[in-house]
Amino acid sequence: MLTTTRLDRDDAAVLVDGAREKSVEMGIPMSIAVTDPAGHLILFEQMDGAKVSSIQTAIDKAWTGATARKGTHVYNQLCVPGEPTFGIHNTNSGRFSIIGGGLPVEVDGEVVGGIGISSGTAIQDLEVAEAAVEHFLKVQANQH
Amino acid sequence: MLTTTRLDRDDAAVLVDGAREKSVEMGIPMSIAVTDPAGHLILFEQMDGAKVSSIQTAIDKAWTGATARKGTHVYNQLCVPGEPTFGIHNTNSGRFSIIGGGLPVEVDGEVVGGIGISSGTAIQDLEVAEAAVEHFLKVQANQH
Amino acid sequence: MLTTTRLDRDDAAVLVDGAREKSVEMGIPMSIAVTDPAGHLILFEQMDGAKVSSIQTAIDKAWTGATARKGTHVYNQLCVPGEPTFGIHNTNSGRFSIIGGGLPVEVDGEVVGGIGISSGTAIQDLEVAEAAVEHFLKVQANQH
Amino acid sequence: MLTTTRLDRDDAAVLVDGAREKSVEMGIPMSIAVTDPAGHLILFEQMDGAKVSSIQTAIDKAWTGATARKGTHVYNQLCVPGEPTFGIHNTNSGRFSIIGGGLPVEVDGEVVGGIGISSGTAIQDLEVAEAAVEHFLKVQANQH
Repeated sequence: MLTTTRLDRDDAAVLVDGAREKSVEMGIPMSIAVTDPAGHLILFEQMDGAKVSSIQTAIDKAWTGATARKGTHVYNQLCVPGEPTFGIHNTNSGRFSIIGGGLPVEVDGEVVGGIGISSGTAIQDLEVAEAAVEHFLKVQANQH
Repeated sequence: MLTTTRLDRDDAAVLVDGAREKSVEMGIPMSIAVTDPAGHLILFEQMDGAKVSSIQTAIDKAWTGATARKGTHVYNQLCVPGEPTFGIHNTNSGRFSIIGGGLPVEVDGEVVGGIGISSGTAIQDLEVAEAAVEHFLKVQANQH
Repeated sequence: MLTTTRLDRDDAAVLVDGAREKSVEMGIPMSIAVTDPAGHLILFEQMDGAKVSSIQTAIDKAWTGATARKGTHVYNQLCVPGEPTFGIHNTNSGRFSIIGGGLPVEVDGEVVGGIGISSGTAIQDLEVAEAAVEHFLKVQANQH
Repeated sequence: MLTTTRLDRDDAAVLVDGAREKSVEMGIPMSIAVTDPAGHLILFEQMDGAKVSSIQTAIDKAWTGATARKGTHVYNQLCVPGEPTFGIHNTNSGRFSIIGGGLPVEVDGEVVGGIGISSGTAIQDLEVAEAAVEHFLKVQANQH
């Protein structure tokens, strides 16, 4: 049997709070998604003013971060024609995101969930995702 | 041009709070989704212990409440073999939910969004959705 | 080789006009779709106030009327558990509509297109579709 | 609560008229789609002779212009292997169009809808979309 550790609802809320705070600071309303390690959605928030096209994208980025256990921006660099990983953006019925802004959330070297951010540029989305994970790890550290 | 009114993020959070409170009271962890009148997700929360199968269902119930402007339990009663509305559960690529727990959210006679609850029985889901809308309307009334 | 006859853009507009006129008379804003005999969309109109959930449904009803060459209400009566046609609403990736409001458009015994109406009850939708076809045939008769 | 403004049916018809007029002038029959800011179809027209493959493409271009709030040709230039935005054409179940011919429709700096044109080259499609928006803004200006 396998025992897995995953974000609970309150952990996910810490991630969303961290993402929202950074988004407000940057002045870019974002869609924010957090999943468990199986890729299932725990929390989602569309900030007022986020693009409609960012909703599904944020969810897919979080799914990819959690299930592929790498940042979506990493796949962006690998998924180039002629390179062995090219085509990965088409897998899983197209929900495998290769646009920056999706990250695995890791605790003690184990992936416990994923976060996905969308509505800015890929670089802005990644910046917000990183700030959210950093915020989460800080809160985690303080709780122990 | 048409002018429409929709729930903002904070309005949606009031609905989620109302739903969560009722779910806790009933002892049934739920998936809770809130959309705008166009059916686009504003907030989603999977309470700890909610069924994985309830995630998409809650989102689809909120979509149906918002876009079809009726409770999903109403369609459940209409969607009976041999009756004219049978088959509606297959429309819109199957996302049209006919299981109780999806409601339109109305303010001054206008649909401003939808809420969807899933993880209990259809009757429990509807009870939570109704409590959420009631809580929202109470908060709205106090704000004016 | 096969030669087929289909509605052109202006024929489709006559059908949409007939549908809109009837909808206005009934006081129910509808989604109106017209396809060619291959099921491909020629014209679509979402009247102000039609339900968001009616957009895809109207298109699917027109597709079904055109390609299955029967009214969708006919399939509604055939698609009953235990009867041989039960399950047809699941075919073609679920776009086969069995809710009244989809009709083939026939000229000289040949199907030249389909019309689909949605946003009212199945019975109202069918009433509008029939009025549209009647209007079209009257205009056709006057042109010859 | 948020208040949003969107194209009504008659506004959408002005856009379709502008697009059709330009298409006739260029001698290229087009598929023309207009959506609201949520990406939902208001009007669609397949001009006689437009390609079957252009129907869904026009609808997807309008959806993208409206919901991503940028021209699809802008994404075409950003979506290049090795660049951060590569992969965006796969998002939203593949309906995110990166082929020129999709534009947001803006009034007073607010996106009130989207237009999508397809059946010519990407450059011709964009030319028609731009002419349609220009025509719409001229009519809008005359009404006020």
